[in-house]
Parts: sequence; structure tokens; C-alpha cells
Amino acid sequence: MSAFSTRAAFEAALTSLTTPDADAIGAAQARQAQLTKPAGSLGRLEEIAIFLAGWQGRERPRLDHGRAAIFAGNHGFTVHGVSAFPAAVTAQMVANFEAGGAAINALAAVAGIELKVVALDLDCPTADFTVAPAMDDDECLAALSAGAAIVDPALDLLVVGEMGIGNSTAAAALCLRSFGGVAADWVGPGTGIDNAGIARKSAVVDRALAFHAEAPSTPFETLRRLGGREIIAIAGAVIEARRLRIPVVLDGFISCSAIAPLAAADPDIVAHCIAGHCSAEPGHGRLLDRLGLQPLLSLDMRLGEGSGAAVAVAVIRSAIAAHEGMATFAEAGVSGGA
Amino acid sequence: MSAFSTRAAFEAALTSLTTPDADAIGAAQARQAQLTKPAGSLGRLEEIAIFLAGWQGRERPRLDHGRAAIFAGNHGFTVHGVSAFPAAVTAQMVANFEAGGAAINALAAVAGIELKVVALDLDCPTADFTVAPAMDDDECLAALSAGAAIVDPALDLLVVGEMGIGNSTAAAALCLRSFGGVAADWVGPGTGIDNAGIARKSAVVDRALAFHAEAPSTPFETLRRLGGREIIAIAGAVIEARRLRIPVVLDGFISCSAIAPLAAADPDIVAHCIAGHCSAEPGHGRLLDRLGLQPLLSLDMRLGEGSGAAVAVAVIRSAIAAHEGMATFAEAGVSGGA
Repeated sequence: MSAFSTRAAFEAALTSLTTPDADAIGAAQARQAQLTKPAGSLGRLEEIAIFLAGWQGRERPRLDHGRAAIFAGNHGFTVHGVSAFPAAVTAQMVANFEAGGAAINALAAVAGIELKVVALDLDCPTADFTVAPAMDDDECLAALSAGAAIVDPALDLLVVGEMGIGNSTAAAALCLRSFGGVAADWVGPGTGIDNAGIARKSAVVDRALAFHAEAPSTPFETLRRLGGREIIAIAGAVIEARRLRIPVVLDGFISCSAIAPLAAADPDIVAHCIAGHCSAEPGHGRLLDRLGLQPLLSLDMRLGEGSGAAVAVAVIRSAIAAHEGMATFAEAGVSGGA
Repeated sequence: MSAFSTRAAFEAALTSLTTPDADAIGAAQARQAQLTKPAGSLGRLEEIAIFLAGWQGRERPRLDHGRAAIFAGNHGFTVHGVSAFPAAVTAQMVANFEAGGAAINALAAVAGIELKVVALDLDCPTADFTVAPAMDDDECLAALSAGAAIVDPALDLLVVGEMGIGNSTAAAALCLRSFGGVAADWVGPGTGIDNAGIARKSAVVDRALAFHAEAPSTPFETLRRLGGREIIAIAGAVIEARRLRIPVVLDGFISCSAIAPLAAADPDIVAHCIAGHCSAEPGHGRLLDRLGLQPLLSLDMRLGEGSGAAVAVAVIRSAIAAHEGMATFAEAGVSGGA
């Protein structure tokens, strides 16, 4: 049976969020305090080690089995000319992932994590959300379940990413519906459209929001009406990872938009998530603020594919290595701080 | 013969700075434009790959032989109570480096670079710079040469770091002398002193600046009078790396302070340098601004030892991997952007 076979199953998952292991957090904090460095001097590396300890339930977290899950989908609204690339590129890039030629292939390899690519009905784009819900209930549940299915209980860390021509428009619609503001707060150049293209995107987002204005503001309805399959799969993966207490590294604006409707209902959904980076897409920094997440990296990346999150895994490995490998003051015979 | 056997040899090195390979830069830029991603979408990863291509003189830079060089020294002014730790900790931490128990051991290992630790006359601290030059000419030349000696011509990348109880005080003095302002602009908590300690540090820096106010404002005189052996060795290593066109990753406030007197005389000295990170030490962000360097990471680290730069190496590896491993649009059969 799939993880999200009914709307009720999805809603139940959101009302029973797991918590990290307080004993493991305490043990990891105590270990950090004894390592040969001034207290706190490894900054976010210390925070990450303690965060991972809590979710993995062990004083010394590990990263032997990390996975980048990249979901791909196509969108009905691309008929309105919202992207610099034709919709056919989604399938072409999936072929590139499978052939090993994309950025995420190189970045996952150097980060030491495996790559799983899940193409979701690319030949069957979602409905144009300016005139209809993007999906019906069953399609939305199938996408959520496809996301959950990628989460192996043996994983130490999950990276989520996406590919879908036009999907920064869906992401903007999800953010606007979840957190308010105006379309211009959330719409940006995506892969590189010009100002006229941005104006078209904003108009598409406004039309979509107006069409769905009277719909219930629940996570499921927002995802189903405004999301895409690849975005909704990320939401399913994040929720399933939470059930299994597997820490997640989020990628850019679109990946993070998947949890915007969930976080609007319950901000605690991000507790097991690290924001891998802040992208160059203008809405991403605003979205991270709303999610209460501080990005690990800020490298002006804006590619998607889980690429920024994969680079962040290298920093996470550094955090684990220092936590695991350093000597204590007592072991090293070093005098402690005054 | 050592690299800097005379003051004239040091000054000559600073007036004949190498330049990167323009052909390799052009070839790397052309390659980036053909890789399967929207132009510019890998942000700083693209910049780093092109930067490395220029200094390494090859279209596809590599990182087969990276080295972290950590220099250690002791300071006469520590008698004034400027650090949270006793001066004996410098030698204890060198022993910890050699035993493999420090943060830099773990971080260099995970970054895939070798670690070389150079302890510089730890039993013979520099003179108290509030009442005398820290070093005489020969001592300064010896420290510069010790730094240069660590730079193997076969290196693909050099990381520089330091250990020296009290040395954030020397760093503040070097910055104040090089770039002006007031002591409070450059003095911070270092390893973790309180506000009273910061006030003591500022007073020590002010006394040092006053004592040396009439000295010539040349890089050599500033380093000799206000530096420490480990800081001056970093300056020597950075200059020698430039001669050999080896790119350098700078660490925190103290490592960067080593090149402040050089950059005040000729800002081009940083052209082969990457700022690995911006530390939590308040003066570091200001110093990076003066050096014209944008940090790769900002993780609230403040340990020294080359630790932040070592974490940055992981990001640099990602940049190299994407540049090397990705397919071109033509190879992958992906449609280019509009």
C-alpha cells in the first residue's frame, strides 16, 4: 500500500510529527563541549552535528548512506510562456541525469551520496492551473506516494531536488497562497527569463490564485490545485522522512515551496530539515525567512536539481568529521579556556 | 638558499606579481557556457572553476594535491592578558595537530588535502610589540622563508591557517596599521574573552600603534614590528604561491591579516586568493571588504587552524567536479535556453 493512499492518511501524517532524540542531543552537546576548541568556535558545524545526532538518534551521527532524490514533472501552464526553455527540456534533462551528465550527477558523486531520479508522468502534464486544479485527488496522492517511496528507512540523510520546466511559476503560486503578499514577492527570473517574462509569470500566478481563491486553504488542496507532481513528491518525501526521523537537506526555491503549504499549517514540519543554500531566485530568501530556516550556503546558485543541497552535503560531512574525529581536552592534554 | 634571504628579495617579490593564464580562463569560460545548465546558474561554482583554471593554467582545473599549511607561533604581548587561554596552549595544540586530534586534522582529511604543521620557535616568543618591534630583520625573514618553504610547486591548491595564543591581537594591530580606523574596528573576542578583555586588547593595540607610529609604512616594517612568526609565515606562503601560480584559500581574521600590509601597498596581491569563509570575529568581515574578497562560506566559525578554509575546500571540489563532469548541451542532446 502506498504511504498516502487517501487524503485522510496524508492529513494524519501531518498531525503526528516525530520529535528528535533528546538523549542523543544531550550527549552530542556534551561531546562538543569537550572537544579541543574554544566553546562554540566551530559555529554552524557544531549545530549541524547536534541536529543530526538528534534526528539519527545517536551521539555521533554518520553519513554512510545519503541519497539525493530528484523528482521531475511537467506543467500545463507552460503554454503561457513562463520559461526560457521549452517543456521538452524536462525529459531531455531526465535523460541527462540517467546518462550521468548533469550537474547533480557530478555534485552527488563528489558529495558521496547516491542519486535517484524519479520522472513523474512527463508525457501527461498537470492541468493548466489558471483554469482548473492542477491535479485531481488521486493524481496528488500518487505524487505524494512517489515521494514517500524514495525514502529508504536505512538512509542517514535525504537530499531533495527537482526538475520541471516552468516550475518556479508553480512555486511562486504555492508561496503566495501559503504566505500571502503579492505575486511580485515570489516571482523571479527562474532559469533566466527577462522582465517581460517575469511580468507574464506574475500574471499567470495572479490568475491562478484568483481562480482558486474560494478553495479550502488546507495543505492538500493547495498542493493539488497549485503544485506539480515533482513538487508534491518532495512534500511526500519530506513527510515520510520525518516519520522515519531521517534528516533532510532542502535545495532551492522550488524544493522549499513544496513545504510552504505544510509549514503554513504547522511550522514544525521543517524541524528535521536543513536549508542547503539560499539561491539567487529572489523569492527564496523570503521563503526561507517564512520557514524559519537559515541557509547553510549562499553561492548565487539557481539551477535546481538538488544541486545547492548536494554542495551543502560537503559542509555537513565536515561537521560530522569534526564531531567524530576530534580529541577531547583530556585526551589531548590541552588546557581548557579561562 | 631561502626564498626571502634579504629584505630586498622580499620587496622584489612584491613588485613582480604573476598573472593568471588568460587562455585557460577563456577556455574554461567557453566550457561553462556549453554545460547542460542555464548560463550562470551554478553561480560561484562557475566563478571558482574559472578562477582555478586561470591560476592552474589548464581549462579543467584539478585538486589532486592540496595542502593545508598551519603555522604556529607565540607572542610577547600575551603578558598583558589578551587571551582566554594561556600561552602554553599553542604548543599543546601543535602536539594535538601532530597526534591528529584537532579540528583541522578531521577537516583536512574529509576535504582530501594533506596537512603540514610548522611550529615556529614556540619557546622563543616575539618581543612585546608595545615596547619594541616584535622581531628583528633576520627573524622576520626567517618566518617569511618558513612560509615560502611549505609551498611545493606541485600543489594544485594551498590552504593557509594558524595557531598562536593571543594572535587576534596582532591581527588587529596589523589591520589598524594597514587600513586605519580605530582599535575597536579590529579587536574582537577571539577565542572567547569578555568585554573587559576586549578593552584590554584594544588598549594593547593602541599602545603598539603609538609606539610604532613613526616607523616606515612598508609591508616589511609593518609585518616585522606588529606581526608574529605564524602570521608572517602565511604572508611568505601567499607570496611564494603567487610566484608559482598556485591558488590559495585564506582562512579567518588572523590568516587574512597577514596580507593586510601587502594589500595596503598593492591590492593585486589577493588576486590568486579565495576567502574561504567569513568568521564570527567582527573584524573579519571588515577586513575582507578592504581586501576586496567575497567569502565562500559564512558559518559563524572562529577557530582558526585553517578550519574554515578546509571546509571551503569541499565547496571548491564541488566546483571542479561540476566543471569537469558535466555534459555539454550537444553531448546530452538538450535544447539550449531561449
